[in-house]
Formats: sequence, structure tokens, C-alpha cells
Amino acid sequence: MKVSELSRRTGVQVPLIKYYLREGLLPPGRATASNQADYGEDHVHRLRFIRTLIGTRGLSTSATKEILDAITTGQEDLHQVFGIALGVRPTKMEEDTGTEQSSTEREPEPEGLVDARKLIAEMEWDVSQGNPAAHTLAEVLTALSDLGADIDWRGLLPYARLADSIAEVDVQQMHGERDLLAQAERAVLVSILLEPALLALRRLAQEAKSARHFGGGRPGEANST
Amino acid sequence: MKVSELSRRTGVQVPLIKYYLREGLLPPGRATASNQADYGEDHVHRLRFIRTLIGTRGLSTSATKEILDAITTGQEDLHQVFGIALGVRPTKMEEDTGTEQSSTEREPEPEGLVDARKLIAEMEWDVSQGNPAAHTLAEVLTALSDLGADIDWRGLLPYARLADSIAEVDVQQMHGERDLLAQAERAVLVSILLEPALLALRRLAQEAKSARHFGGGRPGEANST
Repeated sequence: MKVSELSRRTGVQVPLIKYYLREGLLPPGRATASNQADYGEDHVHRLRFIRTLIGTRGLSTSATKEILDAITTGQEDLHQVFGIALGVRPTKMEEDTGTEQSSTEREPEPEGLVDARKLIAEMEWDVSQGNPAAHTLAEVLTALSDLGADIDWRGLLPYARLADSIAEVDVQQMHGERDLLAQAERAVLVSILLEPALLALRRLAQEAKSARHFGGGRPGEANST
Repeated sequence: MKVSELSRRTGVQVPLIKYYLREGLLPPGRATASNQADYGEDHVHRLRFIRTLIGTRGLSTSATKEILDAITTGQEDLHQVFGIALGVRPTKMEEDTGTEQSSTEREPEPEGLVDARKLIAEMEWDVSQGNPAAHTLAEVLTALSDLGADIDWRGLLPYARLADSIAEVDVQQMHGERDLLAQAERAVLVSILLEPALLALRRLAQEAKSARHFGGGRPGEANST
């Protein structure tokens, strides 16, 4: 197909497609004339994945190229590709410039990180020191303590066990795909896009349970008129 | 205690405490002199809750007053108080001015809302039409469809069942408190503050599981140096 057709199929503007071609995110098409090229289904899939990584996950062009190169050459294992795609592992550029990782090593550890590590150890989760989620967890534990709530890391264990079950479903979702590109795209979609969905599902379940446990009138009645 | 001591105990500045007193969010202290008043532990707890609702949950002063009035007079049932505190039910002001609810009724229903309702029905969650989480769910379903992912509302059912278990833990957390004020505060803390914690726990569990399912080298090794 022509580049105009590729644009129509993917919803990506032609100038942006040409930019991705120049930057090497997209392999060149098969040359058909001096100024024309033919693109295939591979280009459609790859463009869609680029749109997901940059648009949905908010990755930079260079980080996206790194993931695509890793998938294409097949030199890195899938776990490492997932790590970059999910924001668990730093991109090569972040490693080179020493942002993120080393800065957190030099700064004093935030309050609550010791407790976050206790929870991670209790769950027997073997995760990298650089996983930013540990810091998020530490911040929440600190906030709970500051607000005088008597919920410490042990109080979060029931949630951690359910999060473990959620991640098990996530991993099953990824197994279904055949090739690495589709698996990595699925990993990003499942990880990033489902976050607001999970919180929304919890809110809905909370309302339903709140009605059953604390409600006076018929549940759901209040606003349904 | 004097207002200066109340400020020190709660971390709320004296001018802001006086504003809450004027607006009726905080009941007056016991007058001890022409220009002095004595405040008790009730004031400390109430101020802390106000800080949670306004600071953490982002509620307006008037919405906060409504919740406090409902709790103090004990006229509304706990389910309704929770509904307002969790953002499920509109505040009286929103009902009066007709924002939120009626505007969504007039606008065309967003794509994906039909599927969101199917999921809610399948889970037998009896929730109000106005619960904004249903719209969030609809948006995610639409985004998944737009991106060509083959995850529809049925694909989210395993997540919905786990969200149901999470909400069950949430409700258990709220049962522990004795008085309505403490229960409502706990409801807001558990609902709002734990959201980033849940997502962080899922990320950690994802990394641990990704290592086991897809990893080549020893899990967690990559960044631990």
C-alpha cells in the first residue's frame, strides 16, 4: 500500500510517518518508483504499536526505538523488553545519563521505603531495586501515617495478595499473542490502559458493597431516577 | 486547648481554622474569655478529617460541610455519606444546579457505556446511574477497541471479580471504626489514598511474574547492582 493508505489505516498523519521512517522506528517500504514505496501489514502493526508506546504510555521516540530494536533483533529477552515497556527498567539513555536510578541512590531514602521493602519481602516478590512502584508505595505508607490512619504495611497485605492475582491475569493475557511485537504491545496495553479500568471497577464494587453493608434504603435507588 | 495549640496539633494554620469556624465546618470552642475559646479532642479529629476531605479528596468547602453536617446530625445513613465522600453521589449543590447528573443524561451516551453496563449487570453490582466510574470504564473499553486490542467487557470480568474482592477488604477496613466521623474519614482514606498503592502493588507483582514467566536471567538481577 501507499503511504497515504498506511496513514488512513493507522490514523497517523503522513508527515509523522515520514518522521518515524527517518528516525528508523519504521523500516523503509519496498521501493516501487524513484519517490514511492510499498508498505505492508507489518508496517500497520508496527505503527499501531508506536502510537501505543508514544501516545498511551508517553514514551520518548528514542525509548520507543530501543524497544522496537530489542524486539526486532530478538537479542534481549522478553522480560527485559517488558521491563522497559512497563517503566520498571530504565531505558539505555536513562542508564547512560544516570538519571532516575543513581539519583535515588544518592538521595536519602524516603520515609516508608523500609516498610515498602518489608511488604515486598513478605510477598516474596523478586523485583529490581529501581522499580519506581516501590517508591510510590513508600509515599502512600508515609501519607497514611501522617494522616493518623492505623494502616501500615501489614494492613496492605490483603491488597498485595489481590494485586498478585491481578498480575497473574495480566501475564495470562500476554501469553495469547504469537509474535514478540504483539506480546510487547499487549503488555503495554494491559499494564497502562487497564489502570483506570481497575480503579473504576473498584469504585463500582465499593458502591455495591457499601449499599449492602451500610445502606438504609434500596441500593442504587438514590440516583437512578 | 487554645487555637494556637489546635493549629500545632493538626498542622492547619490559625487563619484557616478561623475560616472553618466562620463557615460552620468546625463548631465553636467553649468561650473562656471575651476573645478566647477552649478547643477539645473533637476539634482535632474534625480538623484532621476536613484536611483529608479538602486536601486529599479535593472536595469544596461546601461539599465538606455537607458531609460533616450529615455525620453530625446522623440523619443520613452511612451509605449516603460514603456516596458523597467517595464521589459516587452528587453533593446537594450539584443536585440543585443540575450539573454532572443531568448533563450526562442529555448528552449522547459515550461509546462503550453499553458494554460497561453489561459488565456491571454480569457482576450483579447494584450501582447508581450517576456513578462516574461507569463512564471511566466505558472510555477504557472504547480505547481498547480503537487500538485494536481484543479485550472487550468479557475480558475484563476476571479483573472485575478481583476488584470485587478488593472492595470487600475496603469495607472490612471501615467496619473497625467506632463513630461515624472516624468511619467516614476511613472510607475516604481507604478509597482515595490506596488507589496509587494498588497500582504500585500491581506493577511490583507484574515485574515478579514477568521474570518467572518470560525471564532469561535471574529475576531482579538486572537493576540491583
